[in-house]
Amino acid sequence: MPLRFLPKDWGFFDLFEKQADAAIEAADLFKELVTEGVFGDEAHKRMKAIEHQGDETTYALIAKLNKTFITPFDREDIYALAKELDDVIDMIDVIVNRMRVYHLGGINPDLVEFASLIDESVHAVACAVKGLRNSKDIKGLLGTCIAINELEDRGDLLRDKVIGDLFEKEKDPIAVIKWKEIYQDAETVLDICEDVANVVEAILVKQA
Amino acid sequence: MPLRFLPKDWGFFDLFEKQADAAIEAADLFKELVTEGVFGDEAHKRMKAIEHQGDETTYALIAKLNKTFITPFDREDIYALAKELDDVIDMIDVIVNRMRVYHLGGINPDLVEFASLIDESVHAVACAVKGLRNSKDIKGLLGTCIAINELEDRGDLLRDKVIGDLFEKEKDPIAVIKWKEIYQDAETVLDICEDVANVVEAILVKQA
Amino acid sequence: MPLRFLPKDWGFFDLFEKQADAAIEAADLFKELVTEGVFGDEAHKRMKAIEHQGDETTYALIAKLNKTFITPFDREDIYALAKELDDVIDMIDVIVNRMRVYHLGGINPDLVEFASLIDESVHAVACAVKGLRNSKDIKGLLGTCIAINELEDRGDLLRDKVIGDLFEKEKDPIAVIKWKEIYQDAETVLDICEDVANVVEAILVKQA
Repeated sequence: MPLRFLPKDWGFFDLFEKQADAAIEAADLFKELVTEGVFGDEAHKRMKAIEHQGDETTYALIAKLNKTFITPFDREDIYALAKELDDVIDMIDVIVNRMRVYHLGGINPDLVEFASLIDESVHAVACAVKGLRNSKDIKGLLGTCIAINELEDRGDLLRDKVIGDLFEKEKDPIAVIKWKEIYQDAETVLDICEDVANVVEAILVKQA
Repeated sequence: MPLRFLPKDWGFFDLFEKQADAAIEAADLFKELVTEGVFGDEAHKRMKAIEHQGDETTYALIAKLNKTFITPFDREDIYALAKELDDVIDMIDVIVNRMRVYHLGGINPDLVEFASLIDESVHAVACAVKGLRNSKDIKGLLGTCIAINELEDRGDLLRDKVIGDLFEKEKDPIAVIKWKEIYQDAETVLDICEDVANVVEAILVKQA
Repeated sequence: MPLRFLPKDWGFFDLFEKQADAAIEAADLFKELVTEGVFGDEAHKRMKAIEHQGDETTYALIAKLNKTFITPFDREDIYALAKELDDVIDMIDVIVNRMRVYHLGGINPDLVEFASLIDESVHAVACAVKGLRNSKDIKGLLGTCIAINELEDRGDLLRDKVIGDLFEKEKDPIAVIKWKEIYQDAETVLDICEDVANVVEAILVKQA
């Protein structure tokens, strides 16, 4: 079932796709950094550039929303989608910055696993967001949203496992403070991806 | 003064009552677990079942909202009410899960006191939410909202007391990390209950 | 370019100005307390009085919003502005209360620097909010919003520096737990100020 025809403003879709691409860039870079285990100033600078570009797209989206009378879908959903996609990128940037400030590094297999889940989820998020432009396959899009929810469930289990292990094995309280926050942040990225999926789903249901 | 007559969709009220009942179940179970001092896999499984049921009701509420044109009160208030009630249950589930993952247990009188406050507040929340269906007693409902606010104030004082004591008496930094988070989470449940009360109050004021 | 003429309800502006003044009072008191290094019951009581007054104004704003049909700008922006301004005051109050509960005191130059940034940002926020009443200088107001964003950037850098130092130099894990939270809270005040600036900007763009 195709989306209902409306004299849509395609500019919104262009901007959402740009934002989705920035999110993919951020998740890909995070996976690369985690695999190399290096989180210094250089890593932070690269991520910051992506985050800055994401910010500009979000800003453009909200400025466009504030100036546009007829929008391709509900104003509140456009706002929520722009904000949540921005939050995905911001949260990945927060993690990279914290790793740098906390002088964390080296290859941590648990974080590698988190980075893979995040990368998978962000790619699915981008797919869902891009599907909004001209969906002839609502079922497929809803399936992508369900997949994002499942990745969030896997993130919960992973966080419980690694934080449980951390409390069991790590005897240095300072290391516990640092890594606990990083793992919780990593899981938060998956939570925000789920929030994006929920907005996409709401848009699809309303358009159907 | 009765609420203004409107051709309302009673289905929303049924769903809100179901959600309120799930919140009561969660708060009652939390009180039971805290009194017994056991937070293993079995406890987590029981709470998860309630949380899952709450999720489904929230999902049904939002799906119904997205498909319904005329709603019994403002769309944004329906959305907020559904989300905040869901957050109450989620937060209680988060605490039970953290107790399990952090291997915390035993009877902690401070947590017992928190569980009593939470149970009292959640019962008041359920009463306020159920009162929306056919209120002939707006003053009584507003009184319930004020009682929820007062329970949140008591929660703030309790959190300050127990976290102050924790820093004074607990010498193991790892235990401080764990319990501080649990106490802050417990107070957060009362904050969310207050958020529900605020939505209920807004609905009453608009309908009056 | 002056704001578009509308039969506005000036009462909203009076209340927003009252809220902005309470935020200034809170930021000024915070700066004073930090400079003196004393965070006992007396300090907390003084801050609580401001916070309580802020709460009452927020409550009056939202009650007025719920009873008013024609508003001077979009309902959602009025709600967001009232809520974010309230959050500024609440967050400053949270810090003062935590300093008290954690028995932190003495003059901490890093916190003095944070208090100056916060005070500068809150004064700019009040200026932006008050400018909404009858702006003949939209460019100037937008400039104030940009200044608030820049102060938030400086807050990020300060937080990274002081938390990096804390992990390097502080060997007592309990002290790390306490101060890390205080520094993150202080930066959060600047984040919320930025949120206020974003709402002001949205209002200006829509009115232009």
